[in-house]
Amino acid sequence: MQYIKEIVGKLKDIRNKKTLFVLVIATTDISLIPGITIAGATPELTHFTPAADAEFLLLGKCKSINTIPVTPDGIPTPAIITRAALELFKIPKLVVNAGSRVIPKLPVIDLGGEPGGDIRKGSLRIEVAQRILENSMILGEELSKSYDLLVIGESIPAGTTTAMAVLAGLGYDALDKVSSASPQNPKELKRRIVMEALRDLPTDTFGKISKLSDPMLIAVAGLSIGFKKEVILAGGTQMAAASAIIKELSKETLNNVTIATTRWIVEDPSSDIKYLAEQVGVSVVASMLDFSSSKYEGLKVYERGYVKEGVGAGGASTLALANGYTPNDILKKVEEIYSQLVNIS
Amino acid sequence: MQYIKEIVGKLKDIRNKKTLFVLVIATTDISLIPGITIAGATPELTHFTPAADAEFLLLGKCKSINTIPVTPDGIPTPAIITRAALELFKIPKLVVNAGSRVIPKLPVIDLGGEPGGDIRKGSLRIEVAQRILENSMILGEELSKSYDLLVIGESIPAGTTTAMAVLAGLGYDALDKVSSASPQNPKELKRRIVMEALRDLPTDTFGKISKLSDPMLIAVAGLSIGFKKEVILAGGTQMAAASAIIKELSKETLNNVTIATTRWIVEDPSSDIKYLAEQVGVSVVASMLDFSSSKYEGLKVYERGYVKEGVGAGGASTLALANGYTPNDILKKVEEIYSQLVNIS
Repeated sequence: MQYIKEIVGKLKDIRNKKTLFVLVIATTDISLIPGITIAGATPELTHFTPAADAEFLLLGKCKSINTIPVTPDGIPTPAIITRAALELFKIPKLVVNAGSRVIPKLPVIDLGGEPGGDIRKGSLRIEVAQRILENSMILGEELSKSYDLLVIGESIPAGTTTAMAVLAGLGYDALDKVSSASPQNPKELKRRIVMEALRDLPTDTFGKISKLSDPMLIAVAGLSIGFKKEVILAGGTQMAAASAIIKELSKETLNNVTIATTRWIVEDPSSDIKYLAEQVGVSVVASMLDFSSSKYEGLKVYERGYVKEGVGAGGASTLALANGYTPNDILKKVEEIYSQLVNIS
Repeated sequence: MQYIKEIVGKLKDIRNKKTLFVLVIATTDISLIPGITIAGATPELTHFTPAADAEFLLLGKCKSINTIPVTPDGIPTPAIITRAALELFKIPKLVVNAGSRVIPKLPVIDLGGEPGGDIRKGSLRIEVAQRILENSMILGEELSKSYDLLVIGESIPAGTTTAMAVLAGLGYDALDKVSSASPQNPKELKRRIVMEALRDLPTDTFGKISKLSDPMLIAVAGLSIGFKKEVILAGGTQMAAASAIIKELSKETLNNVTIATTRWIVEDPSSDIKYLAEQVGVSVVASMLDFSSSKYEGLKVYERGYVKEGVGAGGASTLALANGYTPNDILKKVEEIYSQLVNIS
């Protein structure tokens, strides 16, 4: 496990298990606020990003938009890392829609959710949040009949802002601690939105969660609770918020859960996943990927803090590393996929 | 295999395989024609039957309606047989929505389809039929990474009429050969609807299928084609129509496919699954269930030709019998479930 770094707690043995990778997608209207996220070429396009990520992950091409999701600077989605890592050893993948404005042109497991609204007014009605939770728990339980390890990734632009809101709303010291897909984390803007969302908060826990959470976080919590066996939360600081929801609803589930993220998240000076995870009480490990030697500028910029994580990149690469592949194997595969994309577009 | 009868071809070895049961649900507006189906207490309620069947199969209770689906006489859905058979040995289950007016309150895999319209005017637009086919093939392929045997059941009221239309439209001698959930098969009515639907038929195969097929048949065909390994089509004469679609689109897939139905279908004097399957060239086996000794009238009537099949009852019971359970084990479990239902309602 020389390429996996233990940040909080220890990595459990995740080798050679019957594994399923699930990508949970959702949207939040927070991503429409200019400047909040770079997970899409324009604020409006951020609502297409989760669908396009799902399509790229499963099919190797997008159908809902013409190219793969990129930042305004043209840097590609981390879905290429996830696809590369999972292609190395043929892990089955399913897409779960927790509530998205754009539905991928793919078979998608629908949880009967709805897109997340603006958390300043209230993200989800209680009954919608409840339905997402119930259905994701049912799904997790059903999947546990076939698999021993569930790796859960996410795609939701502006998800770090809703994550900050959930963590702060549940009483954690989280302001300015969540990361960003941008090297210039727009902390002021995030903090202002979150502070406004925290006003007039319901007093009960589930009321707070419904107001502040995006649909993805609730679905990730429900899947983890229903699955009962080993769970890898494949993501960055957002997964600390998912873990906080798990802790509120089913504390013992946290024993089965490990956050697996990328080196770029744990080394990010603008956020602090270690501090967040320690507060919640969830383990964190990181895949020690290194793109500095890549021949592609679009990949090298990961080393300068662009993108960092998403679409389960950290968890998928951790899984590959745990099963004997090296960071270089992953980079080679990523470059292979990236070169095809560059040639196509 | 003494309790499984081979009707056409031979049963393959389906014991101890990594198995998934998938229920494909859909609706067709044909079920709204009074007298065409008894799969619902009223014509309007038939559109709730697939959702309620799915809920009952997975959860043991319905959410979309207050009781389980029943015929106008109060005879319960065959989903109780499927649930009983699969409970005997813990087979994972997933629900696939190919196009239903009512969505189950459950996690459901959505294929991006639409409910089937009236086949006399045209059931599905070509692009919708194409989307159902493509997405079901993708799903089948993804599932083949985790499972070696796919058992596919269906729930769609009036599905035997659309099945008859597809078979006749593709050139098979099928008029009056499909079965019915009623002991009084409404053959005249079905034939009249099908004859009208066959007028002004497109000349190309997929155009014919889009006009005549319900969404379920196309999804079952796509799943089978994508899966590539062993497939059990768990149903009656409708599955001969699904097989006919498979034959048009991927003839070699038929070698992996076996229809597994109930004794009540193969002994039905009002239909002829053997003749249909021989024409298409697909194997058929039947589970030799016997409810004549049941203490419940609602189950005994299966022996008088009520219900007969549906929600994968034949295939699920065949699977249980192949894995060493007896018809009496299944009846006991069915009675246990049935008695709870009777006590609840």
